[in-house]
Amino acid sequence: MISVVLLGAGNVGTHFFKAIESTEDVKVTQWYSRNLERIKGYGNKTIVTDDLSQLVEADLYILAVSDDAVGKLSSKLPFENRLVVHTSGSVNVYDLDKKNKRGVLYPLQTFSSHAEMDFNNVPICIETLDKKSYPLLKAVATSLGSPTKRVNSDQRRVLHLAAVFVNNFTNQLYRISHEITESEAAEFDLLKPLIMETAKKVQTLSPYMAQTGPAKRRDKKTIEKHLELLNNPEHKAIYKLLTKSIQHTHGR
Amino acid sequence: MISVVLLGAGNVGTHFFKAIESTEDVKVTQWYSRNLERIKGYGNKTIVTDDLSQLVEADLYILAVSDDAVGKLSSKLPFENRLVVHTSGSVNVYDLDKKNKRGVLYPLQTFSSHAEMDFNNVPICIETLDKKSYPLLKAVATSLGSPTKRVNSDQRRVLHLAAVFVNNFTNQLYRISHEITESEAAEFDLLKPLIMETAKKVQTLSPYMAQTGPAKRRDKKTIEKHLELLNNPEHKAIYKLLTKSIQHTHGR
Repeated sequence: MISVVLLGAGNVGTHFFKAIESTEDVKVTQWYSRNLERIKGYGNKTIVTDDLSQLVEADLYILAVSDDAVGKLSSKLPFENRLVVHTSGSVNVYDLDKKNKRGVLYPLQTFSSHAEMDFNNVPICIETLDKKSYPLLKAVATSLGSPTKRVNSDQRRVLHLAAVFVNNFTNQLYRISHEITESEAAEFDLLKPLIMETAKKVQTLSPYMAQTGPAKRRDKKTIEKHLELLNNPEHKAIYKLLTKSIQHTHGR
Repeated sequence: MISVVLLGAGNVGTHFFKAIESTEDVKVTQWYSRNLERIKGYGNKTIVTDDLSQLVEADLYILAVSDDAVGKLSSKLPFENRLVVHTSGSVNVYDLDKKNKRGVLYPLQTFSSHAEMDFNNVPICIETLDKKSYPLLKAVATSLGSPTKRVNSDQRRVLHLAAVFVNNFTNQLYRISHEITESEAAEFDLLKPLIMETAKKVQTLSPYMAQTGPAKRRDKKTIEKHLELLNNPEHKAIYKLLTKSIQHTHGR
């Protein structure tokens, strides 16, 4: 049995708690949050605390806190030479206080507060500063059901950046589509199957191969019609820039 | 039984043929392509022809040809007063020759040549110039299993435009992510579950509610790190523009 002390009770922390709870080989022996109210309800499942001086000994300490809090919290930990990881895509592993063994368990997924997440769909990128810590982190991630991948800092950084493109930026394109359709009282719902299909396509096909549409075809007539339809100058600029980008990718 | 003559043997035409074949109430009594080679193999399932003068009488003529070809082909049809529709998102319904009754069956989906498409996932937008044609078009689309929606020209136009955002532009964001990850030999595959989850989220949540990330949080530190990582000036410009767009949407 691998024992874990979990620190942080936000979205990521809570999803980690629930996922670890459902495994047979890993256990959250203690859950820390500076706001005890948040985790009090889990008191029948694990020891909850808001007092760092009360932290128990464990095989692994997972800091699931905001990017800005990682460094400070790690330096406040009242012990040394134990394995401490954070869960952020963008925080340097060296930001963790060097008095402990350091690593990262970065779940490459978007978590909603209201929906359960199947960790089979949560790839976990593992980074460690000492080789010896890797097997334990790998075992924890595997117990959760996650695909795992050992990465270095540069790789984790670009994965986090790429995640912003496929998640936040893509979602903003959905939002703009929502605004465009609403402007003519057309139904955004009609686009939902297309949104799913577009995501599904690149599960087996490269995005390069999956591309279609007026930009790739260099269909000037349609592109001009679309630009005329767009009233919002920012939407127009996004249309132009992404059209140009597609044409650069599919240059002749 | 509703009889259909299908014209065009590209992606959309072929998907329509297969979908209609699988229904009980609709039949493709004839399939026209100017390139007979393309459809010869279906000769045991329907009458195939490359000769417009041989077109048989039918309840409905579906022109599944390229945008540019719709007008010309419709004017070459050797009959009058029958129901003729095209399948394009962006072609004006008035581009169809007025000697026939005119309409549109616009399938709001992306079709691959190699994969079968379940028409339950293909919303069909129906437009007609005469009211009397609507029930027949609705019956055809419903037989295919498609959700249907009656739209006017303005609505069809914005749906087509919005489709470019959620399909072509989103796919280009996937492509850029592919380039970014490859630059550090990180695996694009790790992003695939996130891509699916991002699409899934907006099936039940509005894109506005689904948004997260550094742009929305106004996390300047992370945004600056990301901009430093991007070497391609076009990718940098896209990052900046979409970040600004998210911040305008989620303005305080």
